[in-house]
Amino acid sequence: MAAIVTAPATRRTARVADHSAPFITEHGAILRQVDLTYETWGTLNDAGDNALLIIHALTGDSHAAAHGLDDQPGWWEPLVGSGKAIDTDRYFVICPNNLGSCYGSTGPESTDPATGQPYCLTFPMLTVRDLVAIQARLIDRLGIRTLQAVIGGSLGGMQVLEWAAMYPERVRKAIPVAASGRFSAQGIAFNEIQRRVIMLDPAWNEGNYCPESAPSTGLAIARMVGVITYQSDELMAERFGRNPEARYTNWPAFLQRYDVEGYLNYQGDKLARRFDPNSYLYLTRAMDSHDLGRDRGSYEDGLSRITAPTLMVGIRSDILFPAYLVREVSDLLQQLGRDARYIELDSPNGHDAFLNDTARLSEAISDFLSE
Amino acid sequence: MAAIVTAPATRRTARVADHSAPFITEHGAILRQVDLTYETWGTLNDAGDNALLIIHALTGDSHAAAHGLDDQPGWWEPLVGSGKAIDTDRYFVICPNNLGSCYGSTGPESTDPATGQPYCLTFPMLTVRDLVAIQARLIDRLGIRTLQAVIGGSLGGMQVLEWAAMYPERVRKAIPVAASGRFSAQGIAFNEIQRRVIMLDPAWNEGNYCPESAPSTGLAIARMVGVITYQSDELMAERFGRNPEARYTNWPAFLQRYDVEGYLNYQGDKLARRFDPNSYLYLTRAMDSHDLGRDRGSYEDGLSRITAPTLMVGIRSDILFPAYLVREVSDLLQQLGRDARYIELDSPNGHDAFLNDTARLSEAISDFLSE
Repeated sequence: MAAIVTAPATRRTARVADHSAPFITEHGAILRQVDLTYETWGTLNDAGDNALLIIHALTGDSHAAAHGLDDQPGWWEPLVGSGKAIDTDRYFVICPNNLGSCYGSTGPESTDPATGQPYCLTFPMLTVRDLVAIQARLIDRLGIRTLQAVIGGSLGGMQVLEWAAMYPERVRKAIPVAASGRFSAQGIAFNEIQRRVIMLDPAWNEGNYCPESAPSTGLAIARMVGVITYQSDELMAERFGRNPEARYTNWPAFLQRYDVEGYLNYQGDKLARRFDPNSYLYLTRAMDSHDLGRDRGSYEDGLSRITAPTLMVGIRSDILFPAYLVREVSDLLQQLGRDARYIELDSPNGHDAFLNDTARLSEAISDFLSE
Repeated sequence: MAAIVTAPATRRTARVADHSAPFITEHGAILRQVDLTYETWGTLNDAGDNALLIIHALTGDSHAAAHGLDDQPGWWEPLVGSGKAIDTDRYFVICPNNLGSCYGSTGPESTDPATGQPYCLTFPMLTVRDLVAIQARLIDRLGIRTLQAVIGGSLGGMQVLEWAAMYPERVRKAIPVAASGRFSAQGIAFNEIQRRVIMLDPAWNEGNYCPESAPSTGLAIARMVGVITYQSDELMAERFGRNPEARYTNWPAFLQRYDVEGYLNYQGDKLARRFDPNSYLYLTRAMDSHDLGRDRGSYEDGLSRITAPTLMVGIRSDILFPAYLVREVSDLLQQLGRDARYIELDSPNGHDAFLNDTARLSEAISDFLSE
C-alpha cells in the first residue's frame, strides 16, 4: 500500500485499502480502494508514542484547528493548539475525515474503481465499527502503535467508545463527548425522518444525481430536523422566542416567517451547499448502528472490552444524547471495575455544546489528559 | 342564519357564518360561509346552563366519544359518558370539529362559494383565536350563554385558554391539558419542518391537488416528525429499543428497517389516508399563532383576562409542551390572584399521555368539576 497519495501542506490523503489489502465492512461488503483524508498538528516523537486522535461528528471534516495564523479556524479551534487542552506542543494530533463522508475520504460520491462511476447507492452500508477499523489502518500507516488519547463528540464520540472497545491495547485514554454507548430509539427515529426527507426530494433520483443537481432542498430540511436535535427548547426560546421578524427570509414560507424558522432554514441551506446528501444517508445509518453490545453478548459485555481510563462528557440540555444515557456508560464501566468518570456541561446549548461550550470542556479534557 | 344544515343522529353541521353574518378572521380575511360540524352528548337543560365544551387537537375530530354501544369509540372515550369524569348524565357535552380541519367543518378542502372550487391556498390564515371565535358562534346558535367548562388537550388546550381569555363571562371552569399559554420557539420549529416536508412533496403542487393525488408521502413524513414530539425518548426506548425487526415494513427503507422506523412510518401512512395536507399546513400555523399576550400588552396582561378557575394539566415527559411551560401558566395566574392550580401526569408517554393516560386525567377532571 502506498502510504500517502497527496501531500499538501496541511491536508493529506492516505490510501488505506487497495487491491492487495481490501477493506471488508462489518456487513461483509468489500471496498477495494479506500482513501482517508486527514490533518495533523505537532510532531510525532521518535518513540511514536505521543499521538492523539480526534474524530469528528456527522458533517464535520479533518480541519479540527488552524495550521498557523493564516489558516481558517477549525471546528475545535479553542481546544486544539499550542498550549491548549489538546496541546500540539505535546501531542501529535491526527484528525481524519470519516469514511463515507465527502471531504476527501472515500464515500458514496467517490468513483468506484470497478466502474469508473460514482458509487452513489452501490456504496456499502457502514457501521461505526467500520469507520473505526479504517482509521486504525491510517494509524498503522503513520507508524503509530498506541494513541495517548482518542477524543470526539457525537458520532465522533461513538467512534471513541468503539476505538476503546475494538483496540483496548492501543488506546491509553478515551474521551467520548455527548455520546452514549448505543444509539437510542428516538435517535434512530430522528435519523429516519432525515433520510426520508432527502429521499422525498425528486432531485435525489434514487441516489443518482450530479453534484450540481443534488437534492439540496431535501438535505436542507433534513438538516433542519438535525438542528432542532442539536439545540434545545431553552436555547431557542432565548435566541428566537416567538419573534415574527425573520432575519433570514430566503425560503418558501407558508403564510408567515418566524425568526426561528429563518434560523433553521439558514442552517439547512448552508449545509446543503457543502455536504453530499448520499453521505448524509450513509452516515446517519452508521450512527443508527452504534451499539457497543452488538454481537458481543450483552451491552455490559461490549463495555467490558474497554480498559482505558474513560471520561464521559454529557450535556444537561442534550436532546440527541440525553445526559442520563451518557452517564450510564460511566456508571456501567465503574461497575465493571474500570476507571471511568462522568462530567456534565451545565449548558442550555443542547448537543452543540460540545462545539460551543469549549471553556468548561477544555478544562475537563486538560485535567483528564494531565493525570 | 340557518341553525343547522344537516342533522344525522349523532353528527350535525351548523352554518355559523353566511352572507348576512360573514366571519372576519383575526388577520382581516372574510369568510362568507362557514360550517362547523359537531357532536353532542347528553341533554341541554331548560335553563341552558349545563353545557360543557370539548375541543380536539391538531388532527382530531368531533367524535370524542361513542353515541351508544353500537357506535365507534371516540378519541376521549374513557373520559366522556354516563357516570364518567365528563358525565353526560349531568352535562350537555359539545365537541366541534375545528375550523380549518377536514372532518365536516369549513377548511381549505371546502368549496369556496365565490368560485365553486376548493379553497386550497386561497383559504385565509387562521389563528387559535379564530378557531375559538367561530366556536362561540356555534355555542350562540345552540342557545347557550355560559359553559360549565371548556376542556381540551394540545391545540385543544390552547383554545381552552383563549376561550377563557376571550369570553371570561361565558366560561365557568377551564381545563387546558398539555398546553402552554404561548407556543414555544421549538414548537414552531417542529411545525415548520412538517410544513416544509409537505411542500417538498411534488404532489403538493402549491396546494392544488385532488384528494386522490394528495401529497401523502409528504404528509406521512410530516406526521413522523409529529409522532416523535408526541412521544418521548423513554417511551420509544421501552417500546422499540434498538430492535431491527420492523413489524411494519411498507416503506422505502434505506439499507435497514428498525422497529421504531416501522412504527413511525405506520403512523405517518395512517394519517396520510385520513387527513388533508393543506389543513395540516393551516392548523400547524394556527398553533404557531398561540400567544395569550399577542396584542394584549404583555403575556401577563393576556393571562389576566382569565377569571375562571383553571386546572392546568402538564405531562412530565412532554416534549412539545414541556411541563415547566404548562406550570408557568398556573403560577402566573396565581400571581394575578386567580384560582389556578397545576397537576402533572407522571407519565413516560409524552404529549400523547393526554389521550392515553386517562385514569389519572379522569380523576383530576372529575375532582375539579365537582368542586
